[in-house]
Amino acid sequence: MENNDLQKILQSLADGKISVSDAVLKIKNKPFEDLGYAKPDFHRKARQGASEVIYGAGKTPGQIIGISQALINNGQKNILITKLDKEKAGIIGKEIQLDYKETAKIGIIGSMPKEKIGKIVVATGGTSDIPVAEEAAVTAEMLGNNVVRLYDVGVAGIHRLLSNTDEIMTARVIIAIAGMEGALASVIGGLADCPVIAVPTSVGYGASFGGIAALLSMLNSCASGVSVVNIDNGFGAGYQASMINRMKGL
Amino acid sequence: MENNDLQKILQSLADGKISVSDAVLKIKNKPFEDLGYAKPDFHRKARQGASEVIYGAGKTPGQIIGISQALINNGQKNILITKLDKEKAGIIGKEIQLDYKETAKIGIIGSMPKEKIGKIVVATGGTSDIPVAEEAAVTAEMLGNNVVRLYDVGVAGIHRLLSNTDEIMTARVIIAIAGMEGALASVIGGLADCPVIAVPTSVGYGASFGGIAALLSMLNSCASGVSVVNIDNGFGAGYQASMINRMKGL
Amino acid sequence: MENNDLQKILQSLADGKISVSDAVLKIKNKPFEDLGYAKPDFHRKARQGASEVIYGAGKTPGQIIGISQALINNGQKNILITKLDKEKAGIIGKEIQLDYKETAKIGIIGSMPKEKIGKIVVATGGTSDIPVAEEAAVTAEMLGNNVVRLYDVGVAGIHRLLSNTDEIMTARVIIAIAGMEGALASVIGGLADCPVIAVPTSVGYGASFGGIAALLSMLNSCASGVSVVNIDNGFGAGYQASMINRMKGL
Amino acid sequence: MENNDLQKILQSLADGKISVSDAVLKIKNKPFEDLGYAKPDFHRKARQGASEVIYGAGKTPGQIIGISQALINNGQKNILITKLDKEKAGIIGKEIQLDYKETAKIGIIGSMPKEKIGKIVVATGGTSDIPVAEEAAVTAEMLGNNVVRLYDVGVAGIHRLLSNTDEIMTARVIIAIAGMEGALASVIGGLADCPVIAVPTSVGYGASFGGIAALLSMLNSCASGVSVVNIDNGFGAGYQASMINRMKGL
Amino acid sequence: MENNDLQKILQSLADGKISVSDAVLKIKNKPFEDLGYAKPDFHRKARQGASEVIYGAGKTPGQIIGISQALINNGQKNILITKLDKEKAGIIGKEIQLDYKETAKIGIIGSMPKEKIGKIVVATGGTSDIPVAEEAAVTAEMLGNNVVRLYDVGVAGIHRLLSNTDEIMTARVIIAIAGMEGALASVIGGLADCPVIAVPTSVGYGASFGGIAALLSMLNSCASGVSVVNIDNGFGAGYQASMINRMKGL
Amino acid sequence: MENNDLQKILQSLADGKISVSDAVLKIKNKPFEDLGYAKPDFHRKARQGASEVIYGAGKTPGQIIGISQALINNGQKNILITKLDKEKAGIIGKEIQLDYKETAKIGIIGSMPKEKIGKIVVATGGTSDIPVAEEAAVTAEMLGNNVVRLYDVGVAGIHRLLSNTDEIMTARVIIAIAGMEGALASVIGGLADCPVIAVPTSVGYGASFGGIAALLSMLNSCASGVSVVNIDNGFGAGYQASMINRMKGL
Amino acid sequence: MENNDLQKILQSLADGKISVSDAVLKIKNKPFEDLGYAKPDFHRKARQGASEVIYGAGKTPGQIIGISQALINNGQKNILITKLDKEKAGIIGKEIQLDYKETAKIGIIGSMPKEKIGKIVVATGGTSDIPVAEEAAVTAEMLGNNVVRLYDVGVAGIHRLLSNTDEIMTARVIIAIAGMEGALASVIGGLADCPVIAVPTSVGYGASFGGIAALLSMLNSCASGVSVVNIDNGFGAGYQASMINRMKGL
Amino acid sequence: MENNDLQKILQSLADGKISVSDAVLKIKNKPFEDLGYAKPDFHRKARQGASEVIYGAGKTPGQIIGISQALINNGQKNILITKLDKEKAGIIGKEIQLDYKETAKIGIIGSMPKEKIGKIVVATGGTSDIPVAEEAAVTAEMLGNNVVRLYDVGVAGIHRLLSNTDEIMTARVIIAIAGMEGALASVIGGLADCPVIAVPTSVGYGASFGGIAALLSMLNSCASGVSVVNIDNGFGAGYQASMINRMKGL
Repeated sequence: MENNDLQKILQSLADGKISVSDAVLKIKNKPFEDLGYAKPDFHRKARQGASEVIYGAGKTPGQIIGISQALINNGQKNILITKLDKEKAGIIGKEIQLDYKETAKIGIIGSMPKEKIGKIVVATGGTSDIPVAEEAAVTAEMLGNNVVRLYDVGVAGIHRLLSNTDEIMTARVIIAIAGMEGALASVIGGLADCPVIAVPTSVGYGASFGGIAALLSMLNSCASGVSVVNIDNGFGAGYQASMINRMKGL
Repeated sequence: MENNDLQKILQSLADGKISVSDAVLKIKNKPFEDLGYAKPDFHRKARQGASEVIYGAGKTPGQIIGISQALINNGQKNILITKLDKEKAGIIGKEIQLDYKETAKIGIIGSMPKEKIGKIVVATGGTSDIPVAEEAAVTAEMLGNNVVRLYDVGVAGIHRLLSNTDEIMTARVIIAIAGMEGALASVIGGLADCPVIAVPTSVGYGASFGGIAALLSMLNSCASGVSVVNIDNGFGAGYQASMINRMKGL
Repeated sequence: MENNDLQKILQSLADGKISVSDAVLKIKNKPFEDLGYAKPDFHRKARQGASEVIYGAGKTPGQIIGISQALINNGQKNILITKLDKEKAGIIGKEIQLDYKETAKIGIIGSMPKEKIGKIVVATGGTSDIPVAEEAAVTAEMLGNNVVRLYDVGVAGIHRLLSNTDEIMTARVIIAIAGMEGALASVIGGLADCPVIAVPTSVGYGASFGGIAALLSMLNSCASGVSVVNIDNGFGAGYQASMINRMKGL
Repeated sequence: MENNDLQKILQSLADGKISVSDAVLKIKNKPFEDLGYAKPDFHRKARQGASEVIYGAGKTPGQIIGISQALINNGQKNILITKLDKEKAGIIGKEIQLDYKETAKIGIIGSMPKEKIGKIVVATGGTSDIPVAEEAAVTAEMLGNNVVRLYDVGVAGIHRLLSNTDEIMTARVIIAIAGMEGALASVIGGLADCPVIAVPTSVGYGASFGGIAALLSMLNSCASGVSVVNIDNGFGAGYQASMINRMKGL
Repeated sequence: MENNDLQKILQSLADGKISVSDAVLKIKNKPFEDLGYAKPDFHRKARQGASEVIYGAGKTPGQIIGISQALINNGQKNILITKLDKEKAGIIGKEIQLDYKETAKIGIIGSMPKEKIGKIVVATGGTSDIPVAEEAAVTAEMLGNNVVRLYDVGVAGIHRLLSNTDEIMTARVIIAIAGMEGALASVIGGLADCPVIAVPTSVGYGASFGGIAALLSMLNSCASGVSVVNIDNGFGAGYQASMINRMKGL
Repeated sequence: MENNDLQKILQSLADGKISVSDAVLKIKNKPFEDLGYAKPDFHRKARQGASEVIYGAGKTPGQIIGISQALINNGQKNILITKLDKEKAGIIGKEIQLDYKETAKIGIIGSMPKEKIGKIVVATGGTSDIPVAEEAAVTAEMLGNNVVRLYDVGVAGIHRLLSNTDEIMTARVIIAIAGMEGALASVIGGLADCPVIAVPTSVGYGASFGGIAALLSMLNSCASGVSVVNIDNGFGAGYQASMINRMKGL
Repeated sequence: MENNDLQKILQSLADGKISVSDAVLKIKNKPFEDLGYAKPDFHRKARQGASEVIYGAGKTPGQIIGISQALINNGQKNILITKLDKEKAGIIGKEIQLDYKETAKIGIIGSMPKEKIGKIVVATGGTSDIPVAEEAAVTAEMLGNNVVRLYDVGVAGIHRLLSNTDEIMTARVIIAIAGMEGALASVIGGLADCPVIAVPTSVGYGASFGGIAALLSMLNSCASGVSVVNIDNGFGAGYQASMINRMKGL
Repeated sequence: MENNDLQKILQSLADGKISVSDAVLKIKNKPFEDLGYAKPDFHRKARQGASEVIYGAGKTPGQIIGISQALINNGQKNILITKLDKEKAGIIGKEIQLDYKETAKIGIIGSMPKEKIGKIVVATGGTSDIPVAEEAAVTAEMLGNNVVRLYDVGVAGIHRLLSNTDEIMTARVIIAIAGMEGALASVIGGLADCPVIAVPTSVGYGASFGGIAALLSMLNSCASGVSVVNIDNGFGAGYQASMINRMKGL
């Protein structure tokens, strides 16, 4: 609750427009619904002006439907359900109109925004990183951003990346996604002038340890301007990239 | 090398203004000087328009002086030397005019920019995280950003953070710095509308494992819009925060 | 064996009331039955006055039935079987009357105590932590404690937690359950005046490493009064919380 | 801020006793002082009624003195400074009257409470664990608890522990402190009827990995009623043990 | 090849009894058969006088049959096949007479030795450790040792172990098998006068990390006379225990 | 792009043979095809003169077919598809003529080179390491090298290795493959005069941690001349071994 | 306490030879002295008939002196103080007659046993492992065993080990000590007929991780008959080796 | 011992030229000297024809001098002492003529070979990696190879590397040395046609974990033809690079 709101409520009280108990209610009013198993947050929508997000893994289809309907009832038009496997999507889709992006494992309630702005480049080291990249790309598109996909530009064939320098130089934000040795983030970080969000993936075998090798590599990037999100967290990267791409000028 | 430059060189060649060997030279021309032990990068300055950075740890004072002078000779006015301990700073200071920030362990050649813009909040969980915070803050200031310091607002006394909600709500970027359990990033991430860059610190003992606990905590943040840099990497956070704060509008 | 008992046995012997071999027998008498594959402990019941517990994982249904019947034959009325999957529960239920709590993965032989006392708050960071929470809650209820469930109050939406401050302030013990970054324990620990038992869960992906991130986060909590049990160990938390809630005054 | 207080403030405002801006101030009033480098918490004192605690590691003597004086000025009589090395204690002692417990590495401002209640047993596996044990014991004593020390009762000579069964059986809380294999917690947990707080120590070499072996051992204790705090966190154990020992009856 | 043999061969050569090429052959003669995929060792039998062992995991049934037949053809009477799952055992059993011990996951070709000597105690912390214990026990029995099984005597109910002190005091070797916190080895090591071989098991969940907690605990045992084998390596413990039990006096 | 080519293009431009835009095109010309999901590299073929390689894991059969056809269309005659499971191989084989090596999990498009040169020894510690060994051997053969297989020569029966000293002494490169304790690389490294490439395998259980034990063992080899590739990376070892075996003299 | 003793005490009581309180005393009599900081164990001496051991690390010189004198007063003639650094040894030596073995870091009170029996081989991989080896060797000698030292026979020069096959073949127990890749244990385990105790050392750098590489290597030894003690635990290996070497025949 | 030699010895024996005991002696003759603390290997010299190597860390100056003199007495002319700190070098230099390379921490007895052949490129990511690079370079030079140093060409400024493509394309072997994220190996591996030996360094901080990040990165390199040695193991890389560079043609 911000100062202005508080001041307004208190002024109404001082003016006798509302009662003490009303004021208590308003100040303490919960900006979420309590479903028992979940407490969906209705304030975030006000802040973002875009889609609300449900983390789909570890929730039953019934819980996802319940949360979705609470959000819809509260005026939410677009909902993103991440880490949603195909089977759950099928069950949910019988209750609620759902657009399921299989590679991205994202379910969409509502519709893609028509106007997209700016430019987010989503680059991957290899073909196997594409599912994570799609999670990032679909998230960013759903939040109203133009996305350029640059897949399989890993550092072992550096010319594939270098021949796309134009895309990299004109991006407002870049999401660099790679498994194995995760070196893509550093090379892009060295080429680009904009913020780079690195996403390690669990792609690899042996000493890749399910993405730890790429994660450590990215955290230790010798390039400035690179930050990192969790292994396989395409959504998180897409979300922050959207925040940055949509920054207003000073 | 960008297309325009290439086109210009080739045009000059086609026009007979320069010879083939000159063209080869120009196309292949190295945008750095080779000092043997280092190859300082002169292009980055053109891109950033601000200070150049030398990572001070693991370099001898002589090497730092050499690199600094190469940069100065190349027209660089402001240079940041990070992870610079006091003893080395003393030795360098005898050769080059150096402003040494002891808490931040940063040496500055040149002067702070006079105009600072936007608003970057640098928050710490505790008093012991301040050295990392100062590295971030000084970096951001040196790159021309307004910085608000919010120290010792860790989550175990959540009211200390909540009473600063205004600062958090009006920031363009937030750097959340914490050791131990690193929960600060998640709580700030949940409160703020802007990108949050989390910095785990090596503050703590026992199972903090030199910052791993905080690092993992931050990577797993359940708040959207949070990305992470290396343990104790105040510079990296300040640098990327500057990039974001200084974003132009669309 | 305590001094009093020993003294009594020896006095009986000195008085000629019992023979030497009887005394040996009594002193060495085993307070458990030896089933070969298990040695169920009958003394614990005397101490607790409540339910006995069987750790269900890694035991065959036949072994669980055998141990249960040995306990029942020894006068045990209520038995808790933890980490019991549905299939095993089905097999056991054909031999012994069993109330199976599917979410908690607990099988109950006997009946819930009618009188419950005090107040234990069981809080979770998210919806996916509910199975562990139910293990804790059912355990605590079975041991005769009132339980208040506070689910999905994770720190990324801190107002959901803050709007339940009353419950937290009036608890005698709190069980804080969270996966991912596990920050819930620190925030609750900072708000509450009572002991907090933190339970990391294996909920999460990537760098959550099956609960390690949450575990480390909780062990490093900067809040005083927080202790931790094993990853996903809802039972252990419920058990110790019961001990604390049922403490007698001095 | 609790409902009652809020209702009172709002009533005063409705009654015209205070102005709107006063009400804003009171509602938003910070229960801590902002020293820049720290924000000492004055509310905690109200809740605990006993000593306030400063974590001494990673703070300069000047910062510790500053925080201490802010607390004293705010009416705090007893202050505990933990993880305080001898050298810093010397510097602080020149400014503020300080009782320094060298083994426990605790500095005490004020005086030990005269009345101590209940019974907390502090047990160690070996002689080398004593510094951590003293941190726990001094903390518990300072918070008004009777403490029984039971040192060097490690499980490799189980009779040393068994001959102290009386102490263990009559404790209200037990703090079990051990390095190396950390088995003490499990054995005590199996013998005792009361909550056991386990503290792994960094004592050991080789595969003890600075306390990880003991930590894992304690987290996996097969005894019920055992919870764990951070490696070497004697303070945390003493603090929670005090909370439990001082529980009021229902 | 020992000196005596070499001397004999050379003497035969010097005496003209054998040719140079025969001598080369004899000296270089391979004490194993090369099956391409395996080189079964026929010398070991001579040394041990007992059963030969095939590590069953990671070998196809066909390979196991091939190696077994090579050993049989070479005069081996008893063969132990360890880590052999039920399905493979079924396939092999169709080709070769096989006695399959399901709990121990051991297949036996040949017959148990009739004479068994000495006394090896195999103790487990819990019921779930029995499969590993049976691997150790069957191995030791097959190598001609008397085995006493002492299952479910974990340290959380120390009286179960103490009431078996006689068995422990009269053993020549003890195999202490436990998962979770693995404290059994230390307690037995403190009680016993004979060598103790500790076997960590992968029993447990959460921070037991598939046996690492128990492994570290056992390696850090504060009891003298304890050594450790790999997680779940019942065979290795049974084998070395046999070596020790069958030691000749000096 | 090498200097000569650049010089030629620029000379053509200076000579007016090509236009500026043609020159730009030629200089920037991409040596790969962009399939969207992949960017197969056509330059590598020119360099190697042998087979091109597709990493099969994490790619769909459709993607593998697409990449293969792009390579074939570009003149590639032999293609190696590694880490290819049987099911995928079946699907691909319906579209493209494929020779599938099941143990090696390698699919071959095209044919084995007829002329093979030099000598690469592929040695394994045990029978279970053979799949990785076959990946290395088939790779090396496909790249035109003679391969000698030396399987099951692990160090626990050192005579099996010593009786093959001739093979080891006459090799140009040796690939030493082992799981468990991975000691094979060190022993071979001590015996051989040529480069040894060590491959840790994920064979083992318990504290082998999926190959980490063998990996660390090999990295710490006290023998000179040993380098290491990723766990189970038979392909990588075969590839580098081929490079070394095919070295031209000075 | 064994059955016989108990029976005797009880018979004396039944016969009226001793009083009830005497019997209580005798049954409960503590076989150790309580020094506050330590509880030295006087029973162990009875069992071993040889030297008592004090773990010197983490104890102050004063504590070591106190424990030593308690042991001496109790009739102990020979005392071994392990992990004792030179400085502490100097301080202790002023109070008690001490023979300090600098390489082994062992202090000896009393004298070496005159009669030594059997044969324990102590082998090391390299020269740098000698301190750990001396700890093992001196311990074994002090406990009355003949020791053969075989230093610097690491596997990278396998002929150095093979030329000592005689020593290995005639040992009753072997202690195999190595850092780096720790392969020595496996090779010796394959050559020898007797139990092998492996000791990983912290010798090495980089990925040896302070002995973890050697530890894992040894735990995964493919040779039967090998067990492992803690990193650098020469004492533990010497102690168990003595137990085994001194085994009586059946 | 090779077949030819054996055949010769046996022929001499058959011919009566030597006695049986002489033959035993010759066959069993030890190709090393036993100094007690070390067994320097004299055969290796014969094989290499170049310098012998002593690993200096963990050896006393006295031991290094002893081993050196044994080697010199045996005809060795050039000796390399690696990981030798300055202080030890000073002490050794008083006894034996020693050329100490401080950055490389290598001591050289004898003289650099006059003829050097081929071309080994030693590249580093940064200035701080130079000490490891010098260890590799000096080793390679001492073994008779031409070395080209390419320092500070890390991937964050990819043009610094690309402008040295000529050196990379004409190398016979490349040693790629980097700390932090270690991406250099992959980029070079993608550019080069020759074997690449990657050396991770312990340069970095935080999540670089003393070189683990770079090590994992290099092991997971998506470039073919890259193998890895231990962290900071410049010597190992230089040694194997020499083996490869000096390969004879087929």
